[in-house]
Amino acid sequence: MSAFSFEHIRKAAAKLNGQVVYTPLLESSLLNDQLGGRVLFKPECLQYTGAFKYRGALYKILMLTKQQRAKGVVAYSSGNHAQGVAAAARAAGINAKIIIPQDAPTLKIQNTRDYGAEVILYDRYTESREQMGRQIAEQEGRILIPPYDDHAIIAGQGTVGLEIAESLTAMEIAADAVLVPCGGGGLIAGVSTAIKALSPATRIFAVEPVGFDDTRRSLLSGQREINTTQGGSLCDAIVTPQPGILTFAVNQQTLAGALVVEESAVLSAMQLAFSRLKLVVEPGGVVGLAALLSGAYAVEGKTVVVVLSGGNVDAVTFRLVLDG
Amino acid sequence: MSAFSFEHIRKAAAKLNGQVVYTPLLESSLLNDQLGGRVLFKPECLQYTGAFKYRGALYKILMLTKQQRAKGVVAYSSGNHAQGVAAAARAAGINAKIIIPQDAPTLKIQNTRDYGAEVILYDRYTESREQMGRQIAEQEGRILIPPYDDHAIIAGQGTVGLEIAESLTAMEIAADAVLVPCGGGGLIAGVSTAIKALSPATRIFAVEPVGFDDTRRSLLSGQREINTTQGGSLCDAIVTPQPGILTFAVNQQTLAGALVVEESAVLSAMQLAFSRLKLVVEPGGVVGLAALLSGAYAVEGKTVVVVLSGGNVDAVTFRLVLDG
Repeated sequence: MSAFSFEHIRKAAAKLNGQVVYTPLLESSLLNDQLGGRVLFKPECLQYTGAFKYRGALYKILMLTKQQRAKGVVAYSSGNHAQGVAAAARAAGINAKIIIPQDAPTLKIQNTRDYGAEVILYDRYTESREQMGRQIAEQEGRILIPPYDDHAIIAGQGTVGLEIAESLTAMEIAADAVLVPCGGGGLIAGVSTAIKALSPATRIFAVEPVGFDDTRRSLLSGQREINTTQGGSLCDAIVTPQPGILTFAVNQQTLAGALVVEESAVLSAMQLAFSRLKLVVEPGGVVGLAALLSGAYAVEGKTVVVVLSGGNVDAVTFRLVLDG
Repeated sequence: MSAFSFEHIRKAAAKLNGQVVYTPLLESSLLNDQLGGRVLFKPECLQYTGAFKYRGALYKILMLTKQQRAKGVVAYSSGNHAQGVAAAARAAGINAKIIIPQDAPTLKIQNTRDYGAEVILYDRYTESREQMGRQIAEQEGRILIPPYDDHAIIAGQGTVGLEIAESLTAMEIAADAVLVPCGGGGLIAGVSTAIKALSPATRIFAVEPVGFDDTRRSLLSGQREINTTQGGSLCDAIVTPQPGILTFAVNQQTLAGALVVEESAVLSAMQLAFSRLKLVVEPGGVVGLAALLSGAYAVEGKTVVVVLSGGNVDAVTFRLVLDG
């Protein structure tokens, strides 16, 4: 397979220009005081559909041929990727079918429908979404939009990293590190490729919830390790079985390491995002800040960028945060 | 007195460039579907200190002479202006004293102290903060930073309007209307001056909570009307006794009118900001969206910019929003 390169991200940024939210870098001096370092947040919770996923999905769709567009796309996801693909398909004026487990939260199913996609429900205990996706793709000639293990998807998510580098340059500062939530590894593969190309000395860290540290273990062993459990984490958005093939090939080259955070630190981080940044961030999206709070990364005296990858959290979970 | 002009805002923008957050325009296609129009949000809750107040305070402070800076500043406020002045003084490296009622929320007092200001508590039932402010200003040679009725303050807040106009131009769209929360009228005086200069056909509306519609009544009567009650509104950030002298002189020329919203619509608007925009917006900051929800402004088929002026809301109030 051909190597993934920064040029692909530059092309994606040109294509997506004006069609995605160019999110600002935000900071809080009170939070900086508390942490003893300078922390800049990249709030992708403010991206269309409330998560960075929209970038990759839209770029992938915009790269389809006219013939492919006419047949539409298909994707499977129970979360942010579903909404990202549905909204991107709508923006591009093409048809989308999204395969979602029938026990997914009603709100996520409704949102995906509201973006104009056709939702196909399946039983996650008796049916395989991968098989259903392949079948629909073959029978209807639809292109399957994968959640992360695809160079166009990685390039689209990588525009987050390009924007970070551009904003830092405009502010005339350099970052010691960038912390990125990591599930399948698409976001961090793209972000790390962009940052490494533009600021080679900056170290990039994946952040994972305890019990789902497949990327950390994979970086140590040199092969794609599998998580022993497949669900039950507060950080549902970044729980995946194992690193992707393409994403891991990139991340092995670009990452300085991976950090692991407990759920208690995740809830504290969500509270600080609420009180200091005025942002609604979902558990899986806030793990980078959690890593600073827990000391998993020692931020004192450093300048660090934290990617807040999404904000799709329901009121019940957010109430937990406010209740402390 | 000399008239306030758009040139003053341009100068403020040049001075503040890189020192305030250039907030993006955000939108939600699902929210647009719900409202039947296109709504772009200017999230000043993401500004430093969580409110637009930082802009005016910093510009006012940056315009002081070296001699004035050496003596420091003083301000009175129980809310966003206190934190804005404290943080701006810190950023400019000067001393600040802030006069706050002793029964103000502990968190606001603590935040103001954390920004490095000296907090002076007073009894709002027996002492006059205006008199205390004047006394401290005279005795210590400090400059009083007023909350709104000052051309430098209006110019600083007006950079919000300049940014809105620039962003709309970049997006190649024109707005039918801009809705702005209105207390003393400093923010809307600046915003309306900038928008009217760059997009004369756009109509600007003040939005006020029911019972505190002094600007609406003043626009109708042609003189500065007074609110009969002085407190007790959920929208505490925009409750003031009457329009300012300088702000009303501007707003009489620039505004298309004023809209009034009920507290129930304010809570619904906060819930939508949470679920659709991933933003924490305070009651007084979200009244523009509330005016769309209630039908006070008929958004159907229109393109409207809504300024979300601040996000300093405590967990207790936000829990009300999540509880529906």
